[in-house]
This record gives sequence, structure tokens and C-alpha cells, in this order.
Amino acid sequence: MAGSEDMGGEKGGQHTSEAVKTVVVVIAMQAEALPLVETLQLVEDEQISVFPSGVPWKKYSGEIDGLDVHIVVPGKDKTLGVDSVGTVPCSLLTYASAVALRPNLLINAGTAGGFQAKGANIGDVYVATEFANHDRRIPIPVFDKYGVGTIEATPTGNLIRDLKFKEGKLSTGNSLDMTLQDEEYIKANDATVKDMEGAAVAYVANMLAIPLISLKAVTDIVDDSKPTVEEFLKNMSMAASALSNAVPLVLKYVSGKTVADLHSS
Amino acid sequence: MAGSEDMGGEKGGQHTSEAVKTVVVVIAMQAEALPLVETLQLVEDEQISVFPSGVPWKKYSGEIDGLDVHIVVPGKDKTLGVDSVGTVPCSLLTYASAVALRPNLLINAGTAGGFQAKGANIGDVYVATEFANHDRRIPIPVFDKYGVGTIEATPTGNLIRDLKFKEGKLSTGNSLDMTLQDEEYIKANDATVKDMEGAAVAYVANMLAIPLISLKAVTDIVDDSKPTVEEFLKNMSMAASALSNAVPLVLKYVSGKTVADLHSS
Repeated sequence: MAGSEDMGGEKGGQHTSEAVKTVVVVIAMQAEALPLVETLQLVEDEQISVFPSGVPWKKYSGEIDGLDVHIVVPGKDKTLGVDSVGTVPCSLLTYASAVALRPNLLINAGTAGGFQAKGANIGDVYVATEFANHDRRIPIPVFDKYGVGTIEATPTGNLIRDLKFKEGKLSTGNSLDMTLQDEEYIKANDATVKDMEGAAVAYVANMLAIPLISLKAVTDIVDDSKPTVEEFLKNMSMAASALSNAVPLVLKYVSGKTVADLHSS
Repeated sequence: MAGSEDMGGEKGGQHTSEAVKTVVVVIAMQAEALPLVETLQLVEDEQISVFPSGVPWKKYSGEIDGLDVHIVVPGKDKTLGVDSVGTVPCSLLTYASAVALRPNLLINAGTAGGFQAKGANIGDVYVATEFANHDRRIPIPVFDKYGVGTIEATPTGNLIRDLKFKEGKLSTGNSLDMTLQDEEYIKANDATVKDMEGAAVAYVANMLAIPLISLKAVTDIVDDSKPTVEEFLKNMSMAASALSNAVPLVLKYVSGKTVADLHSS
């Protein structure tokens, strides 16, 4: 949706010409977030001041390189105690954080599966150039396109080049495995990386016209013979460590810049 | 989750002992909502007063049987013009409406596929007794249960009996079709009806501890030989008409009662 730049250089009504001041970093898993919270020396605050009572969401805040930085995580499922992964909790958290904190930049950082056929290696950090869904099949004309829900990313060519990230398209689904139908849609989405939240975060960012940078660290290669779950669990802390390097680099880079500055003109 | 009633008759912290005053009815498709808006003579208001600017969400409000009633729909996709069906838009709309309007009862009304093996017929209106997901496969211990995300419904035995609704378990996924994997999960979820939003609305209602009644009108039989899409499109307006009868009956029934009154004691 949106995606094209208008003549003023703004993407889909996004305010890309104002200096970045407040950044919200959305992270689905606590194990992905905590190394970064420690690196940035952020402080967990009383979430009740920002979010309604009862929600399991966590917020860690501080000032980094002159920016107000908030890391938000959807927290633990109240009954089962595991991280609230997937599209619904992350979209709710992104929405609530955006409305309460009014960031002028969102970052979604997390782990992803990568396709070696597209050049992905374990440990790579990708910036998503496009978002789509691979598990929303609605075989009615136009609804079929809505289900895929392609959204072009906020353009950040300078940042990708200067910080030496890889770039590629991201496809999102609510399952860690991949069925034949998922695979078909992932191929149609031309995806290099696959995750469980990205397109939902992008949907909210796009709806509220907030620029978004999506950083995805590869924990497993989807198109090899090794089982996804084992690779994911084995490489999880390495990927979290890659993110705890990448996010501070991005924060340092965007400080003093506008979002429009992040893209080659 | 929650689900068990404590000794005070409250479900998972839900306020079931106060008289119902404000009701928010969440409906995914405009064609499902408009006959009901007309029947209830609700008025579309300026959504900007309740929701942030830029969102496509619609709200129709009025006083019915002494209740403040608001019908909310996620509206049309900005780029493609089709209804914003599926879990993410409906969970966001439910969350934003609940925070802004503070209802003490949520109703999710919509269409569903039904399983004839479980006794469902086209045109039946079901009240969901349990919610689960069938397209969130996470094959890691505990995360597997989180993916399914079973939530017991707010108990409404009296209402179901007195208004002669059918009752059954609801399974939700973001696709209109059904893959072999979906079918396996739907069977494991013991579902009688299948939709594209219910479990996500229930997730938000449960998180915010707001009682929820889910009314699902059957547009198509999933386990017969007729194609789902054709049946869905053919029976859509009949199902919308069934809902525009059922929802006013529910509003009339709950008026002057507490949510605890809706359940046989």
C-alpha cells in the first residue's frame, strides 16, 4: 500500500522531513530484547502509565544519542508464560505504543528465517524493503491481494549502504513451520526473509503514517535440510546479539537526521 | 484463557456483576454491519473523535433498549477498497474501541463456515463457547499451545437457551480456504464453526477483561463438496440478515441484566 513517494519526498503521508526525536523499537521476544536493553542501559518503567491495566506489555526507556528511545515487548502470555509472538499481539503493541508515545520512527527488530537461494546466511542482519503476508489466502478477486497485503518499506538506502546491512523482502506468517501453501506464497512474495510479526507491524505503521525500519537477524535457513526449530533455538542468542549490535548503530545513525536523510536522494 | 469462574462468579477478572450499560459490537464486513445499522437506526459519527486520524475504522452509535450501543467496523482497505477482514485489523479495532468507549460488554457478530459433521446448517446463528486458532503452528513445547491460544467464552447459558441459539466452538484463521494443516488443527480444536476474526477479538476481550458474546451466522458448509467461496458469496446477505435479527434480540435480552445473569446459575 502507499509506498510511492510524492513530490515532496514524503512516503504515503509519513512525516519524513522532521528530525527523528522519539523512536519506538518493537521486539516480539524478551530474549531478543533484553541484551539490547542492557547494551543501551534502558530502564523498565511502570507500563501502567502508558498502557491499560491488565496487558502483559513491557516498556524500557532512556535517552540514547539525543533520542527518546523506548523498547516495547508484548511480554509473556498470562496463562502459558511464553512470549506473545505473532501478528496480533505485536500489532496491538505497536498501535498502543504509537498512540501513547507518538514516535516519529518505529523500528521492528527480531529474528527471521532466511532463504539461501536468495543469499541469506545465518547471522545476517537484513533491512526489509517490502512486507507481505504468506498465510492469508482469500480466493476472491481483490480480497486475494488484500490477504497478501504488500506494503513497501520506508526507503532507507543510505542507512543500508552506510551500515552495510543486507536488504531483502520480508514475508510474515503466524507459524514457525512452512506448509506447501506458505512456500508458494513466500515465493510469490519474492521473500528473502520470513518472520512472524513484520507485516503486521508494517500494517500499523502504514495506517498511522509512521516511518518504519525493520531489522531481521537470520536464525535459520529455511531452504536447507536442517530442521527449522532446532536451528532457531540454537542460533537465537547469536541473533539477539547481532540485533543488540545493529540497533544501537541505527540509533546513532538516525540521530540528528530526518527519515528522508536515510534514503539516497 | 482464564475461563474458570472464581467464587464471586467473575470470569478471569471480568466485571460480570455490573449491569450492562455500554455495548460495542465488532463486525468485520460492512455488508454484515449495514443491515444491522439500519435496523437499529444507528448514526455514523465522526470517527476522528474516538480513533486516531488516518484509520479507516467506522463507528455507528445510538441508544437501544436503554443501552449505549456502538457498532464498529474496520472499514475499507485504503489501497484496495475491500473490507479489512482478518485478525489484525479486527484486534486493533476491538482494542481501540474498548479503550475509548469502555464497554462492559463486547459482541462480535459475523459470518462463519460451519461443519455439517457437527450439526451446522446454512443460516444457523451460533454463540461461540470457546475460541482457538488453526493457523498458528509453533512446534516448540508450550509455544505450540500458545499458537492455538484457546480461550473459553464468557458463559451465557441462559441467553443461548432463551434466545434459542445454537452453541459451538469457534476456530479462527486468516484464510477463507482450508488446507490439510488447518483441517487438522480445526479438528483438534473441536470446532463447529470457523471464521477469520473471532479468536483475535476474544484475545483482546480476555486481555482487557471485558465480557464477550460471539454470534456467528453460517454462510457455507465447509465439509461438503460445494466450493466455499461460491457458497459464502451466495449466502452472505442471508447471513447478514440473520445477524440483523439476532443482534437486536441479544441487546433487548441483556438490557437491565448483568453479564452474570446471562449464565444459568
